[in-house]
Amino acid sequence: MKDIRNPPLLGVLGGMGPLAAADFLTKLAEETPATRDQDHVPYVAWGVPQIPERPAAILGRGESPLPQMLRGIAALKQAGAQAVAIACNTAHYWHEDLQREGGLPILHIADAACDLLAERGITGGNIGLIGTEGTLRAGFFQQRFAARGLGCIASSPVDQQRLVLPAIAAVKANDLAQAHTLAVQAVLRLHEAGARAVVLACTETPLAIDHAPSAATPLCIDATRALARACVSWYRHAAAAGDGRIP
Amino acid sequence: MKDIRNPPLLGVLGGMGPLAAADFLTKLAEETPATRDQDHVPYVAWGVPQIPERPAAILGRGESPLPQMLRGIAALKQAGAQAVAIACNTAHYWHEDLQREGGLPILHIADAACDLLAERGITGGNIGLIGTEGTLRAGFFQQRFAARGLGCIASSPVDQQRLVLPAIAAVKANDLAQAHTLAVQAVLRLHEAGARAVVLACTETPLAIDHAPSAATPLCIDATRALARACVSWYRHAAAAGDGRIP
Repeated sequence: MKDIRNPPLLGVLGGMGPLAAADFLTKLAEETPATRDQDHVPYVAWGVPQIPERPAAILGRGESPLPQMLRGIAALKQAGAQAVAIACNTAHYWHEDLQREGGLPILHIADAACDLLAERGITGGNIGLIGTEGTLRAGFFQQRFAARGLGCIASSPVDQQRLVLPAIAAVKANDLAQAHTLAVQAVLRLHEAGARAVVLACTETPLAIDHAPSAATPLCIDATRALARACVSWYRHAAAAGDGRIP
Repeated sequence: MKDIRNPPLLGVLGGMGPLAAADFLTKLAEETPATRDQDHVPYVAWGVPQIPERPAAILGRGESPLPQMLRGIAALKQAGAQAVAIACNTAHYWHEDLQREGGLPILHIADAACDLLAERGITGGNIGLIGTEGTLRAGFFQQRFAARGLGCIASSPVDQQRLVLPAIAAVKANDLAQAHTLAVQAVLRLHEAGARAVVLACTETPLAIDHAPSAATPLCIDATRALARACVSWYRHAAAAGDGRIP
């Protein structure tokens, strides 16, 4: 990549989960083929967690976070961002509204996950989906899988309660050993139910799975890492084309 | 902390080391006493790594990074930041210039490290200092130690070459086991030379030390974590006082 003084700038909308944006930015650096600091993707990140809870809003039980998210997009745009990545799976429920009202192209984490599935040669069959209640109910992963001819298997309500949600809670409580045991079981249960691969569509479960190698590791697609890879592609394309369009 | 719609906003100047800002933001979340997402410190982060190398500039062998850093501060200020943290030890060489020309108060990582030493009851004697050549030559840690009545012991040139720099290189190459062995030795050598505590004044060595428990662990102060703690204090003070001054 050539040395450029005014490279394309990626906007990162964070603050939804206190660690989600830092996790995304770490993966952004890890996924960048770089031989020196200057090869990395330049970003501006908005991490303001004073924003209404997303799952409650999706379930129709709380205030909409949309105005606060739009405020973040406006700040990113004013700072010079040419495209936006949202470091939160659940928040993609508002992707269309944010893109239309925010005036910047926004990469989609479910498109990124589908691209990574295709890169791995998975273009048919059923895909497992692990996420919060909000993400599962929002339906955008399932819709994007379907648009690519992929079926979707979510955890059963029983497994969601006894494996997925406790795994997420264990990560938040920094008990990675316990989280790992639960998350691996959740992935393997989806595999037994017919999933060829499993998309980890919440920030916490990749930390649980990555804690140690297991039979689940080769089955998993980390949606956050997929989004980071999509951002690296966007950056390389934008730097070459001189604009911020999503390729 | 009360629920506030327009909380004080912390600016984070990153991009100096592709992972340094993500590491700082992780520690900022970890050091925040929070019972819910909304208790965390709101930030805007500028992570543009297309900036001249800092060590070369300090050693008088390269272009100054100051104009690019000031561009970052200007973006943070325009986005609403009321104070700035710089997620890079070496870059504090330009702290005074940045604060004067940037027009925002900037927390200082060496002040933060001194505060954490004092919190641990260390108010005299010699402090070990582990950092890059640029940070050691810049002298701001040594000066701030002296202002608090603390002496400073840096690694010998031989130890710098055979332990500190290889430990940093091993972290960058993701060989944490090797990095750990080297960094622990570097810390214990400073302790043998009379250091009561050792400040880890580069982004990489805390990762090496934290890889496993060792005799070095209780001796170490992570400067990045100290800066994160100072930012949490700043935020609590600013939220209460209604302005962005550094307490």
